[in-house]
Amino acid sequence: MEWLDSIKWDRDGLVPVIAQEASSGDVLMFAFMNREALARTAELGQAVYWSRSRQKLWHKGEESGHFQQVHEIRVDCDADVLLLKVTQLGHEPGIACHTGRHSCFFRKLDGTQWLTTDPVLEDPERIYRR
Amino acid sequence: MEWLDSIKWDRDGLVPVIAQEASSGDVLMFAFMNREALARTAELGQAVYWSRSRQKLWHKGEESGHFQQVHEIRVDCDADVLLLKVTQLGHEPGIACHTGRHSCFFRKLDGTQWLTTDPVLEDPERIYRR
Repeated sequence: MEWLDSIKWDRDGLVPVIAQEASSGDVLMFAFMNREALARTAELGQAVYWSRSRQKLWHKGEESGHFQQVHEIRVDCDADVLLLKVTQLGHEPGIACHTGRHSCFFRKLDGTQWLTTDPVLEDPERIYRR
Repeated sequence: MEWLDSIKWDRDGLVPVIAQEASSGDVLMFAFMNREALARTAELGQAVYWSRSRQKLWHKGEESGHFQQVHEIRVDCDADVLLLKVTQLGHEPGIACHTGRHSCFFRKLDGTQWLTTDPVLEDPERIYRR
Protein backbone atom coordinates (compact mmCIF):
# COMPACT_ATOMS: atom_id res chain seq x y z
CA MET A 1 0.00 0.00 0.00
CA GLU A 2 1.89 2.97 -1.37
CA TRP A 3 -0.12 5.59 0.55
CA LEU A 4 0.89 3.91 3.82
CA ASP A 5 4.51 3.56 2.75
CA SER A 6 4.73 7.29 2.05
CA ILE A 7 4.21 8.10 5.75
CA LYS A 8 7.41 8.76 7.68
CA TRP A 9 6.88 6.53 10.70
CA ASP A 10 9.00 7.52 13.71
CA ARG A 11 11.56 5.32 15.51
CA ASP A 12 8.68 3.56 17.29
CA GLY A 13 6.75 3.01 14.06
CA LEU A 14 4.23 5.70 14.99
CA VAL A 15 2.93 8.95 13.59
CA PRO A 16 1.30 11.76 15.63
CA VAL A 17 -2.35 12.43 14.85
CA ILE A 18 -4.43 15.57 15.46
CA ALA A 19 -8.20 15.05 15.61
CA GLN A 20 -10.21 18.12 14.68
CA GLU A 21 -13.99 18.42 14.82
CA ALA A 22 -15.19 18.86 11.23
CA SER A 23 -18.19 21.04 12.09
CA SER A 24 -16.60 23.47 14.58
CA GLY A 25 -12.90 23.32 13.71
CA ASP A 26 -12.16 22.61 17.38
CA VAL A 27 -9.00 20.61 17.98
CA LEU A 28 -10.27 17.73 20.09
CA MET A 29 -7.30 15.55 20.89
CA PHE A 30 -3.86 14.33 19.95
CA ALA A 31 -2.82 10.69 19.70
CA PHE A 32 -0.67 8.28 17.72
CA MET A 33 -1.21 5.69 15.01
CA ASN A 34 0.91 2.87 13.77
CA ARG A 35 0.56 1.49 10.27
CA GLU A 36 -2.20 -0.93 11.19
CA ALA A 37 -4.17 1.74 13.07
CA LEU A 38 -4.08 4.05 10.05
CA ALA A 39 -5.07 1.26 7.66
CA ARG A 40 -8.01 0.29 9.90
CA THR A 41 -9.07 3.93 10.32
CA ALA A 42 -9.24 4.35 6.55
CA GLU A 43 -11.09 1.06 6.13
CA LEU A 44 -13.54 1.56 9.00
CA GLY A 45 -14.21 5.30 8.66
CA GLN A 46 -13.73 5.56 12.44
CA ALA A 47 -10.61 6.57 14.32
CA VAL A 48 -8.37 3.72 15.45
CA TYR A 49 -5.27 4.86 17.34
CA TRP A 50 -2.28 3.12 18.87
CA SER A 51 -2.34 3.32 22.65
CA ARG A 52 1.24 3.85 23.82
CA SER A 53 0.33 3.19 27.46
CA ARG A 54 -1.48 -0.07 26.69
CA GLN A 55 0.66 -0.97 23.66
CA LYS A 56 -2.30 -2.02 21.58
CA LEU A 57 -4.74 -0.79 18.98
CA TRP A 58 -7.33 1.52 20.44
CA HIS A 59 -10.60 1.90 18.61
CA LYS A 60 -11.57 5.26 20.11
CA GLY A 61 -14.98 4.85 21.75
CA GLU A 62 -14.69 1.10 22.34
CA GLU A 63 -15.13 1.68 26.08
CA SER A 64 -16.84 5.08 26.22
CA GLY A 65 -19.12 4.81 23.19
CA HIS A 66 -17.51 8.05 22.03
CA PHE A 67 -16.48 6.91 18.57
CA GLN A 68 -15.04 9.30 16.01
CA GLN A 69 -16.48 9.25 12.51
CA VAL A 70 -13.65 10.18 10.15
CA HIS A 71 -14.47 12.46 7.22
CA GLU A 72 -10.97 13.29 6.06
CA ILE A 73 -7.43 12.09 6.64
CA ARG A 74 -4.77 14.69 5.90
CA VAL A 75 -0.99 14.47 5.97
CA ASP A 76 1.48 17.31 6.40
CA CYS A 77 4.29 18.50 4.11
CA ASP A 78 6.88 16.23 5.75
CA ALA A 79 4.51 13.24 5.77
CA ASP A 80 5.12 12.74 9.48
CA VAL A 81 1.93 14.14 11.05
CA LEU A 82 -1.74 13.32 10.32
CA LEU A 83 -4.83 15.47 10.71
CA LEU A 84 -8.26 13.85 10.96
CA LYS A 85 -11.50 15.74 10.39
CA VAL A 86 -14.02 13.96 12.58
CA THR A 87 -17.48 13.96 14.05
CA GLN A 88 -17.34 13.04 17.71
CA LEU A 89 -20.18 10.57 18.30
CA GLY A 90 -22.02 9.34 21.42
CA HIS A 91 -22.83 12.65 23.10
CA GLU A 92 -24.05 16.07 22.05
CA PRO A 93 -21.91 18.15 22.18
CA GLY A 94 -19.13 15.67 21.46
CA ILE A 95 -16.87 14.43 24.25
CA ALA A 96 -13.36 13.59 23.06
CA CYS A 97 -11.50 13.83 26.36
CA HIS A 98 -11.31 11.09 29.00
CA THR A 99 -12.05 13.80 31.60
CA GLY A 100 -15.55 14.11 30.11
CA ARG A 101 -14.81 17.38 28.32
CA HIS A 102 -15.38 18.32 24.69
CA SER A 103 -11.69 18.76 23.95
CA CYS A 104 -8.49 17.66 25.66
CA PHE A 105 -7.20 21.23 25.31
CA PHE A 106 -9.37 22.62 28.11
CA ARG A 107 -6.70 24.65 29.89
CA LYS A 108 -5.20 27.89 28.68
CA LEU A 109 -2.27 29.88 29.93
CA ASP A 110 -3.45 32.88 31.92
CA GLY A 111 -0.42 34.88 32.97
CA THR A 112 1.62 32.25 34.75
CA GLN A 113 -1.03 29.64 35.41
CA TRP A 114 -3.08 27.10 33.50
CA LEU A 115 -6.73 28.05 33.74
CA THR A 116 -9.46 25.46 33.07
CA THR A 117 -11.88 27.01 30.60
CA ASP A 118 -14.15 24.12 29.58
CA PRO A 119 -16.76 22.29 31.63
CA VAL A 120 -17.04 18.56 32.24
CA LEU A 121 -19.99 17.46 30.08
CA GLU A 122 -20.33 14.01 31.58
CA ASP A 123 -18.79 12.44 34.65
CA PRO A 124 -15.99 10.07 33.50
CA GLU A 125 -17.15 7.61 36.16
CA ARG A 126 -20.39 7.30 34.25
CA ILE A 127 -18.79 7.29 30.81
CA TYR A 128 -16.53 4.35 31.57
CA ARG A 129 -18.97 2.36 33.71
CA ARG A 130 -21.20 1.59 30.74
CA MET B 1 8.23 28.76 36.87
CA GLU B 2 5.52 26.37 37.95
CA TRP B 3 3.50 26.59 34.72
CA LEU B 4 6.56 25.40 32.79
CA ASP B 5 7.30 22.65 35.32
CA SER B 6 3.80 21.26 34.93
CA ILE B 7 4.47 20.35 31.27
CA LYS B 8 5.45 16.71 30.72
CA TRP B 9 8.52 17.15 28.54
CA ASP B 10 9.39 14.04 26.52
CA ARG B 11 12.66 12.08 26.65
CA ASP B 12 14.25 14.77 24.44
CA GLY B 13 12.94 17.61 26.61
CA LEU B 14 10.37 18.54 23.98
CA VAL B 15 6.62 18.88 23.70
CA PRO B 16 4.59 18.67 20.46
CA VAL B 17 2.79 21.84 19.45
CA ILE B 18 -0.21 22.30 17.16
CA ALA B 19 -0.61 25.77 15.64
CA GLN B 20 -4.18 26.66 14.73
CA GLU B 21 -5.30 29.83 12.97
CA ALA B 22 -7.44 31.76 15.45
CA SER B 23 -9.74 33.33 12.85
CA SER B 24 -10.48 30.29 10.66
CA GLY B 25 -9.79 27.34 12.95
CA ASP B 26 -7.48 25.89 10.28
CA VAL B 27 -4.72 23.69 11.65
CA LEU B 28 -1.63 25.29 10.14
CA MET B 29 1.34 23.26 11.30
CA PHE B 30 2.85 20.96 13.87
CA ALA B 31 6.20 21.51 15.56
CA PHE B 32 8.03 21.09 18.86
CA MET B 33 9.06 23.34 21.73
CA ASN B 34 11.54 22.88 24.50
CA ARG B 35 11.25 24.72 27.78
CA GLU B 36 13.09 27.80 26.55
CA ALA B 37 11.03 27.99 23.35
CA LEU B 38 7.80 27.91 25.34
CA ALA B 39 9.02 30.54 27.79
CA ARG B 40 10.06 32.82 24.93
CA THR B 41 6.79 32.27 23.08
CA ALA B 42 4.84 33.36 26.15
CA GLU B 43 7.12 36.35 26.71
CA LEU B 44 7.26 37.47 23.08
CA GLY B 45 3.68 36.75 22.01
CA GLN B 46 5.10 35.14 18.87
CA ALA B 47 5.74 31.47 18.23
CA VAL B 48 9.25 30.25 18.99
CA TYR B 49 9.77 26.55 18.31
CA TRP B 50 12.64 24.12 18.71
CA SER B 51 14.00 23.01 15.36
CA ARG B 52 14.87 19.32 15.65
CA SER B 53 16.72 19.31 12.32
CA ARG B 54 18.84 22.35 13.19
CA GLN B 55 18.91 21.67 16.96
CA LYS B 56 18.28 25.30 17.85
CA LEU B 57 15.53 27.73 18.75
CA TRP B 58 13.48 28.72 15.75
CA HIS B 59 11.61 31.99 15.88
CA LYS B 60 9.04 31.13 13.21
CA GLY B 61 9.23 33.81 10.52
CA GLU B 62 12.85 34.80 11.21
CA GLU B 63 13.77 33.87 7.61
CA SER B 64 10.42 34.06 5.82
CA GLY B 65 8.86 37.05 7.57
CA HIS B 66 5.91 34.74 8.30
CA PHE B 67 5.75 35.28 12.05
CA GLN B 68 2.96 33.85 14.16
CA GLN B 69 1.21 36.14 16.60
CA VAL B 70 0.10 33.99 19.55
CA HIS B 71 -3.30 34.71 21.07
CA GLU B 72 -3.64 31.66 23.26
CA ILE B 73 -1.50 28.83 24.57
CA ARG B 74 -3.45 25.71 25.54
CA VAL B 75 -2.31 22.45 27.09
CA ASP B 76 -4.05 19.08 26.93
CA CYS B 77 -5.34 16.83 29.70
CA ASP B 78 -2.05 14.93 30.01
CA ALA B 79 0.02 18.15 29.88
CA ASP B 80 2.12 16.72 27.07
CA VAL B 81 0.76 18.55 24.00
CA LEU B 82 0.31 22.28 23.36
CA LEU B 83 -2.17 24.08 21.13
CA LEU B 84 -1.47 27.63 19.97
CA LYS B 85 -4.15 29.93 18.59
CA VAL B 86 -2.30 32.18 16.19
CA THR B 87 -2.54 34.81 13.50
CA GLN B 88 -0.20 33.95 10.66
CA LEU B 89 1.54 37.22 9.71
CA GLY B 90 3.44 38.39 6.61
CA HIS B 91 1.04 37.37 3.85
CA GLU B 92 -2.69 37.46 3.28
CA PRO B 93 -3.96 34.74 3.45
CA GLY B 94 -1.39 33.45 5.92
CA ILE B 95 1.39 31.12 4.79
CA ALA B 96 2.48 28.71 7.51
CA CYS B 97 4.08 26.01 5.34
CA HIS B 98 7.61 26.11 3.94
CA THR B 99 6.11 24.98 0.60
CA GLY B 100 4.39 28.38 0.36
CA ARG B 101 0.95 27.02 1.26
CA HIS B 102 -1.51 28.22 3.89
CA SER B 103 -1.30 25.02 5.93
CA CYS B 104 1.14 22.13 6.08
CA PHE B 105 -1.84 19.76 5.86
CA PHE B 106 -2.43 20.32 2.15
CA ARG B 107 -2.84 16.68 1.12
CA LYS B 108 -5.81 14.49 1.83
CA LEU B 109 -6.35 10.81 1.38
CA ASP B 110 -8.45 10.14 -1.70
CA GLY B 111 -9.05 6.41 -1.96
CA THR B 112 -5.51 5.09 -1.89
CA GLN B 113 -3.59 8.23 -2.78
CA TRP B 114 -2.65 11.53 -1.22
CA LEU B 115 -4.25 14.32 -3.21
CA THR B 116 -2.91 17.89 -3.00
CA THR B 117 -5.88 20.16 -2.30
CA ASP B 118 -4.31 23.53 -1.50
CA PRO B 119 -2.48 25.93 -3.83
CA VAL B 120 0.99 27.41 -3.39
CA LEU B 121 0.34 31.03 -2.42
CA GLU B 122 3.90 32.22 -2.85
CA ASP B 123 6.92 30.53 -4.42
CA PRO B 124 9.20 29.31 -1.59
CA GLU B 125 12.19 30.48 -3.66
CA ARG B 126 10.89 34.00 -3.26
CA ILE B 127 9.89 33.61 0.40
CA TYR B 128 13.33 32.50 1.53
CA ARG B 129 15.36 34.80 -0.76
CA ARG B 130 14.23 37.90 1.13
